[in-house]
Amino acid sequence: MVTVTVWNEYRHEKENEDVAAVYPDGIHTTVAEGLREAGYDVNTATLDEPEHGLTESVLDETDVLAWWGHKAHGEVTDEIADRVVQRVRDGMGLLVLHSGHYSKPFKRLMGTSCSLKWRDDGERERIWTVEPGHPIADGLPESFEVPRAEMYGERFDIPAPDELVFLSWFEGGEVFRSGCCYTRGKGRIFYFRPGHETFPIYEQPEIRTVLANAVDWAALGTGPDPTFDNVAPLEDIE
Amino acid sequence: MVTVTVWNEYRHEKENEDVAAVYPDGIHTTVAEGLREAGYDVNTATLDEPEHGLTESVLDETDVLAWWGHKAHGEVTDEIADRVVQRVRDGMGLLVLHSGHYSKPFKRLMGTSCSLKWRDDGERERIWTVEPGHPIADGLPESFEVPRAEMYGERFDIPAPDELVFLSWFEGGEVFRSGCCYTRGKGRIFYFRPGHETFPIYEQPEIRTVLANAVDWAALGTGPDPTFDNVAPLEDIE
Amino acid sequence: MVTVTVWNEYRHEKENEDVAAVYPDGIHTTVAEGLREAGYDVNTATLDEPEHGLTESVLDETDVLAWWGHKAHGEVTDEIADRVVQRVRDGMGLLVLHSGHYSKPFKRLMGTSCSLKWRDDGERERIWTVEPGHPIADGLPESFEVPRAEMYGERFDIPAPDELVFLSWFEGGEVFRSGCCYTRGKGRIFYFRPGHETFPIYEQPEIRTVLANAVDWAALGTGPDPTFDNVAPLEDIE
Amino acid sequence: MVTVTVWNEYRHEKENEDVAAVYPDGIHTTVAEGLREAGYDVNTATLDEPEHGLTESVLDETDVLAWWGHKAHGEVTDEIADRVVQRVRDGMGLLVLHSGHYSKPFKRLMGTSCSLKWRDDGERERIWTVEPGHPIADGLPESFEVPRAEMYGERFDIPAPDELVFLSWFEGGEVFRSGCCYTRGKGRIFYFRPGHETFPIYEQPEIRTVLANAVDWAALGTGPDPTFDNVAPLEDIE
Repeated sequence: MVTVTVWNEYRHEKENEDVAAVYPDGIHTTVAEGLREAGYDVNTATLDEPEHGLTESVLDETDVLAWWGHKAHGEVTDEIADRVVQRVRDGMGLLVLHSGHYSKPFKRLMGTSCSLKWRDDGERERIWTVEPGHPIADGLPESFEVPRAEMYGERFDIPAPDELVFLSWFEGGEVFRSGCCYTRGKGRIFYFRPGHETFPIYEQPEIRTVLANAVDWAALGTGPDPTFDNVAPLEDIE
Repeated sequence: MVTVTVWNEYRHEKENEDVAAVYPDGIHTTVAEGLREAGYDVNTATLDEPEHGLTESVLDETDVLAWWGHKAHGEVTDEIADRVVQRVRDGMGLLVLHSGHYSKPFKRLMGTSCSLKWRDDGERERIWTVEPGHPIADGLPESFEVPRAEMYGERFDIPAPDELVFLSWFEGGEVFRSGCCYTRGKGRIFYFRPGHETFPIYEQPEIRTVLANAVDWAALGTGPDPTFDNVAPLEDIE
Repeated sequence: MVTVTVWNEYRHEKENEDVAAVYPDGIHTTVAEGLREAGYDVNTATLDEPEHGLTESVLDETDVLAWWGHKAHGEVTDEIADRVVQRVRDGMGLLVLHSGHYSKPFKRLMGTSCSLKWRDDGERERIWTVEPGHPIADGLPESFEVPRAEMYGERFDIPAPDELVFLSWFEGGEVFRSGCCYTRGKGRIFYFRPGHETFPIYEQPEIRTVLANAVDWAALGTGPDPTFDNVAPLEDIE
Repeated sequence: MVTVTVWNEYRHEKENEDVAAVYPDGIHTTVAEGLREAGYDVNTATLDEPEHGLTESVLDETDVLAWWGHKAHGEVTDEIADRVVQRVRDGMGLLVLHSGHYSKPFKRLMGTSCSLKWRDDGERERIWTVEPGHPIADGLPESFEVPRAEMYGERFDIPAPDELVFLSWFEGGEVFRSGCCYTRGKGRIFYFRPGHETFPIYEQPEIRTVLANAVDWAALGTGPDPTFDNVAPLEDIE
């Protein structure tokens, strides 16, 4: 059974009444609820726990880590960020949610600034499935709407995705690569754009379908662990 | 349960004693045996059956089609080749085995000549896993040998694979992109190089692991069936 | 000096007054004019010429072929379509313009249906540069508008582009992968979406910049011509 | 005119007689000589210069930076490594040579460990051109040999290259992705495997052709500099 850890910085919900009204138990609780419904074994962890809740043993037992952060990226210690990065390279899946584009683990794994344009006007977003054969698109329609969203617009400064599954259209005139797949080391990474703290996006059925599919796609596999050594030849050398 | 159809032109085995000694019931039977062991529901079809065994109803019930052909590519009718191509675009997975690189369905789906260099000297091949995090690499070692193989060498005239999982080293001095993933329409395609008719390669455990993994990776999904129409606007136009 | 042939089916302009008002000498003439300004050696060819103007000698002397067709794709003979395809595989660049997505050469090179959604309401299109470091983006702004356009919307049934340079936003709610790079054989292919026959899009400066850049990017190179033969070993075989 | 800076840690040559015999004026001098012959404006910089020779003004005037390092990666300061990374993201090309796979700038831009297998037995390497249509393959044969080379073997822990131009075959039984193209931010990066300090590889004509082509491919373009801001809508929002 695939084990998921949903990580949240969990600050907005404690500091802002409007956010608390939408996610009274924290975004992580809502995301975890959706993934449990999909049949996964789900735990949560938050910034203010010791080691941000991401001890070595927690990560060792995590097949897929989902990451939501926004206003406190800088408070994630370098040590824990590097631990997450290393665990991804060793094969753990990583789901990077919305404003997690600016998190330390994602930026270190991408090697780019991960910057973008943004606007928080509560406008309409329409998400188009551009790769209907991809497993993360299972059970989805050709397009669906997020009624009120924070806009993220291109140029999104990421490496070209290995697979691009979703594109977003925004009422205000922008587009965005909203569902991006990567492999780094042995780990599979999925960036998914929707998910602002002031809208109940993680309760929307299509969003829950995407996240459940993405966990399955990103789950730790059993491929070989490469060795990186000075090696003897396998064939005779003249 | 995933349903697989293993297709074979099934000529070498009937016309050549050396091949019959290796694959007495045909290559398809041996490939099918390996996939059944992996738990799939497997049928076979061959060139000399009516409609090459690939009727509309057979294809409609096939999640993944494996294709082995070599000396009779030209005898596959255009109608059946196009039927296979259409079914792949509609989401059926396709495993193209060894000399199937020159089959009509593969060439039509790739859009290139699919040519390569070759030599049938029974030399040693070593297959390296270059993407250990890919699901098709599950359960495999970092590298493994095919003791006696027909050589295929670069330049392999294919589109750059969406994902490149295996590379081959050959005793005679060549290299080859041996495990290549593509998506065309909604269908997922995996080309896998090993598998000559005069060597018992499809009985080798690592080869069987690759094929079983590839079926799982390529299996028909439940993403949206796109519509291609003149459409009304979803938003007001000035 | 790079030699370009601009091909046009050249029917709308002769049969429809509205189109003739926009492109009195044919779309090919306007496209060619822009490329000449950019310093290329440019010729034109049209459907109703002998061999559609694409004789062996014309193609042999063409480094980059630009292709505009719409209502008469079926009148292009298979022989000439295959000749173009072969020349691309041999290294000629190909620019596929707007409704050329449904042309025989493009569909044969892609291996997919190349279908899409469409609407001819003259709405606003905004083209976003998503890969600002790509040479086809040289000299362009982050985004620019086509004031009145025919809409093409996703799902665009193409192989995932090797490089995706532009995305389009449409007033009516759709998005589109508008600038797509491919390599097939030795040839480089660029699909560029804008360019409807009833709007003077090929006179727009940004569009001309894109096409001039694309010619430079796609121009025939001097890499090796692969041989596809039965070859002797380069190293001793046991 | 394209301006190139060739950077070298320049330690082996001063500390080891065998290396000094091959590269008496340093590897950078030999690499620079080849690029000057190709018509570029070439400067050099080395580790022990102030700011490692990579001041802000040097980088600002560099279109493409070539990087050779091996035993002193750790002595490159984080500040200068980050400066190089930032300049690449802003559009400067980067050629990473041989053991530069472990350099700070390359690892930060890739986001992976960049580890590999290795062996220094002076064996034969054969480099195969797998993308003959790529501009970095201009003027090259289908394959060529490096008579004596340090072996690098897969798994090479890099992100899947955007474009894979060369593959290496090694006498001892390994293969390697030897010519790998990336875009990060606006900058284009080419990793090229050959080039050990104890062999005169940078004097070999094919190697010089590759490096000259790679400079041209990676040179700074004139695409838009994206803005990453809170932006006003471009269209009316309800």
